[in-house]
Amino acid sequence: MIHIALLTDFGTRDPYVAAMKGVLASRCDAALADLTHEIAPFDVWEAAWFLRPVAPYWPEGTVFLAVVDPGVGTSRRILAAEENGRFFVAPDNGLLTFVAGERVIAVEDESIFLPDGSNTFHGRDRFAPVAAAIAGGQRIETLGRDARPIVRLDYTPPRYASDHAEGTIVRVDRFGNLITDIERARIGFGPHVDGVGGEARTYAEAPDGPFLITGSTGCIEISVRNGSAAAVLHLRRGGCVTVRPA
Amino acid sequence: MIHIALLTDFGTRDPYVAAMKGVLASRCDAALADLTHEIAPFDVWEAAWFLRPVAPYWPEGTVFLAVVDPGVGTSRRILAAEENGRFFVAPDNGLLTFVAGERVIAVEDESIFLPDGSNTFHGRDRFAPVAAAIAGGQRIETLGRDARPIVRLDYTPPRYASDHAEGTIVRVDRFGNLITDIERARIGFGPHVDGVGGEARTYAEAPDGPFLITGSTGCIEISVRNGSAAAVLHLRRGGCVTVRPA
Amino acid sequence: MIHIALLTDFGTRDPYVAAMKGVLASRCDAALADLTHEIAPFDVWEAAWFLRPVAPYWPEGTVFLAVVDPGVGTSRRILAAEENGRFFVAPDNGLLTFVAGERVIAVEDESIFLPDGSNTFHGRDRFAPVAAAIAGGQRIETLGRDARPIVRLDYTPPRYASDHAEGTIVRVDRFGNLITDIERARIGFGPHVDGVGGEARTYAEAPDGPFLITGSTGCIEISVRNGSAAAVLHLRRGGCVTVRPA
Repeated sequence: MIHIALLTDFGTRDPYVAAMKGVLASRCDAALADLTHEIAPFDVWEAAWFLRPVAPYWPEGTVFLAVVDPGVGTSRRILAAEENGRFFVAPDNGLLTFVAGERVIAVEDESIFLPDGSNTFHGRDRFAPVAAAIAGGQRIETLGRDARPIVRLDYTPPRYASDHAEGTIVRVDRFGNLITDIERARIGFGPHVDGVGGEARTYAEAPDGPFLITGSTGCIEISVRNGSAAAVLHLRRGGCVTVRPA
Repeated sequence: MIHIALLTDFGTRDPYVAAMKGVLASRCDAALADLTHEIAPFDVWEAAWFLRPVAPYWPEGTVFLAVVDPGVGTSRRILAAEENGRFFVAPDNGLLTFVAGERVIAVEDESIFLPDGSNTFHGRDRFAPVAAAIAGGQRIETLGRDARPIVRLDYTPPRYASDHAEGTIVRVDRFGNLITDIERARIGFGPHVDGVGGEARTYAEAPDGPFLITGSTGCIEISVRNGSAAAVLHLRRGGCVTVRPA
Repeated sequence: MIHIALLTDFGTRDPYVAAMKGVLASRCDAALADLTHEIAPFDVWEAAWFLRPVAPYWPEGTVFLAVVDPGVGTSRRILAAEENGRFFVAPDNGLLTFVAGERVIAVEDESIFLPDGSNTFHGRDRFAPVAAAIAGGQRIETLGRDARPIVRLDYTPPRYASDHAEGTIVRVDRFGNLITDIERARIGFGPHVDGVGGEARTYAEAPDGPFLITGSTGCIEISVRNGSAAAVLHLRRGGCVTVRPA
């Protein structure tokens, strides 16, 4: 079974996702799966960081249809990428920063789009048909030509030194957890962050107040048990975090 | 593959959609697709306008199960309709105003309902079994008799003249776009709306402040780039819009 | 077709559900269905009461994957249960209070988990693989040993006497309906609740102000037509309700 996994900033109250799913259902037999439609409007960064920890868990052959597209209707390109046997269809605006590597095609075959499409809803008129074609077995090389270089988000990877590490808060989740990009396994010392308590192995073992924990992506997170670290520490996405020996 | 596409005002926090899906899964092999469950409670108009731009994109054979049903438990009828090869199951309260035409049946065969059903949740006890039966191949004529006339929402279609057009704001989407029912292709002049700037082809080309754009249904929309036209203009659903030559 | 029905408190804005679905799609061919991801964070009671009126409507063979797991990473056990031909995978924290009976296994076969899993996301690393295995036909007895007794929520069932009945508000739904656990069919008299008007058969027949109605689970609910009984009466979940003869 081939899956098409959908990620948008459309919400579900408006009929946009519903129309996109209709195009997919009309054009292929893939199973449709909602990843999220709650990306903040136009927030390409949030979408890019959503895909990164998710894609590897899906089976090969999955097509990720990711539409956060403030440039809809402009000349920004439509990308079809393959990475580790999985496929990605998205606008060329940085959304694929963390998942596109091996092969990226700029889609040029307009015959695949819906006829008489709009200038404001390429998700339905262009992206969905491309995703359906790939799900149906079409090779991405046949859709256009090599797109590289593609647009990539500004992003400074974490730096690791023997006595400290510096990284970024890349996401704040619904529980208020501050998720950094600092990999716990790269740190050779007991970590400490100013204003934050010790390190806990699980939420249940956590002290009162903010503490450090290794999250589900292997990176350091700042949490508050049964509370919001973001609210307690007044920190948000993009903030820098320095880890020093405890 | 047959699809059942669900539209309700139930939200997903309560167990209502979950129970409906269970009935569908118990009674047929169709693929279940969420259109939306975020219709405002009891807002039949919103539901009716949701279906209109969505249904044509789904494949023939799709069954739309649409439950916004303030009259649940009363004698309001249960409709099963066919239009262009697609099927619709909904209460007779105007929900099918824009999609039911050719054939509409008032369901009378109660043997198809769940036994010992409730008076408060016909979505689970009656509508879902009807949708499952149709998805399984039952012809709608066998479910009851011709329902026409059905309840239709009060709605004045737009009027087009050589020097102006009048229409209605039929929806405000999550981005604050004001979506009218005035088809751009029916207007023979460069359009202007009082208090709104010029016409843009794409969001990227838009001026500051409110502007006109042709939306994904081919109708004129009033938008603000990276903002909410509804908030800026203090307009909402049901408002009249007059388009004159620029 | 086998269904896996998902219930979590993760919301859909974060990538947690998306990763769980990926694991399921990678490990079995079941159809994935969202029940809800909007359980209030850590609210095991809400999740337990969600499952109760939903599970019976799903076909035999369905696997319910229910993850509300404040004790993630601790020694709380992972349960795999069977009841009336349906399967349930959940933490041993009371979530299965109302659905687990006949057979409950504490999962001990760690070979089934994802390798190198985290301490903070067992939904992805442990629960999803167990659910996928069961959906693929693995017998739950092969996963571990008899788990009884399991953790059960404190809950006093309603009491029925000839001249009154006492129960609990077990849920407040999005419409503000106050849903009790008092079964209408167990009451031999015309019911009355202090501060609440008469009993109505349907919402359409309801008087102004709060009234009693038999809800979709056969239990007494307090509703306000086109309004919120919870807001009008200042009542919430856990409140006691006494029903006396009218």
